[in-house]
Amino acid sequence: MSFEEKTMKTEKIYDGKILKLRIDTVELPDKKYSKREIVEHPGAVGIVPITENNEVVLVKQYRKAVEKVLYEIPAGKLEIGEEPLNCAVRELKEETGIIADKMEFISEFYTTPGFCDEKIYLFIAQGLEEGKANPDNDEYIDVVKLKINEVLSMINDGVILDSKTIIGILMAKRVLEGEK
Amino acid sequence: MSFEEKTMKTEKIYDGKILKLRIDTVELPDKKYSKREIVEHPGAVGIVPITENNEVVLVKQYRKAVEKVLYEIPAGKLEIGEEPLNCAVRELKEETGIIADKMEFISEFYTTPGFCDEKIYLFIAQGLEEGKANPDNDEYIDVVKLKINEVLSMINDGVILDSKTIIGILMAKRVLEGEK
Repeated sequence: MSFEEKTMKTEKIYDGKILKLRIDTVELPDKKYSKREIVEHPGAVGIVPITENNEVVLVKQYRKAVEKVLYEIPAGKLEIGEEPLNCAVRELKEETGIIADKMEFISEFYTTPGFCDEKIYLFIAQGLEEGKANPDNDEYIDVVKLKINEVLSMINDGVILDSKTIIGILMAKRVLEGEK
Repeated sequence: MSFEEKTMKTEKIYDGKILKLRIDTVELPDKKYSKREIVEHPGAVGIVPITENNEVVLVKQYRKAVEKVLYEIPAGKLEIGEEPLNCAVRELKEETGIIADKMEFISEFYTTPGFCDEKIYLFIAQGLEEGKANPDNDEYIDVVKLKINEVLSMINDGVILDSKTIIGILMAKRVLEGEK
């Protein structure tokens, strides 16, 4: 059985700085029509930087959408045509000042595919050399270093709430323990 | 240091069936202004149903936003004022026909807090009794049952791509193995 939904009409609602919004009228398998509200996003990368002492480098950042300061792995949006690996190297340097000897792809996922096309590519960074950060003009970021076991407790306890950070840490742990 | 961003102006762009879009003009810590594009979503639940034989019940569903059929845990949006636990019981029954003897909260997270307030509450469901599904009119869903180890391989191999499903399975594994 094919589930595909054919686009019968597209209405563009908004074209902004980081996202676009459109409404597709689709034909369902039973030939009836329905509407799909779709947010378009360029995609992003997240980096799990692991030090020689099994510490993880995280950033603390205020997120207006949820009105909270969140702990997150370093991350950033893909520029047009940019390879995820290059974006990961660039964003890690910009947000934390770190240059990694080894940057390895571990996983990719859709943040919320029910209404948004955003895909995040995750990397593990090792062999870290610290330097000076250079965040964007409207980014206020605190860089912190925490033991990986402490970060796992923060996930268990609901202190870490960001999807890419939870997936990045849990997948990095699987890679480090040879389960992936 | 306080990172908070004060809202100076709010512009409502769109008010739809499942999401709203607004643009906030915010004051940054250095007193400069910036714009934040924010998608408002009612929030959702995801349920990891585990059978007596260590199988996971997943649903296969076409997702227009990413133009793909995805494997996901059963899930659904919160209704206004609805408790996540009640929503989990309702959505599990609607999507799969299953009634669970035991429904336990395991985790919560923001799907993409850089621009969206959507929070997902995750539950593990055990003691499953199968019945007849009753999905929404515009939902076309296939229910599948897979060994939890097979599902972990599908996460490793990038076959499972949905954030709530990856987090739900990895957190359920931690709960089952006593690491949470």
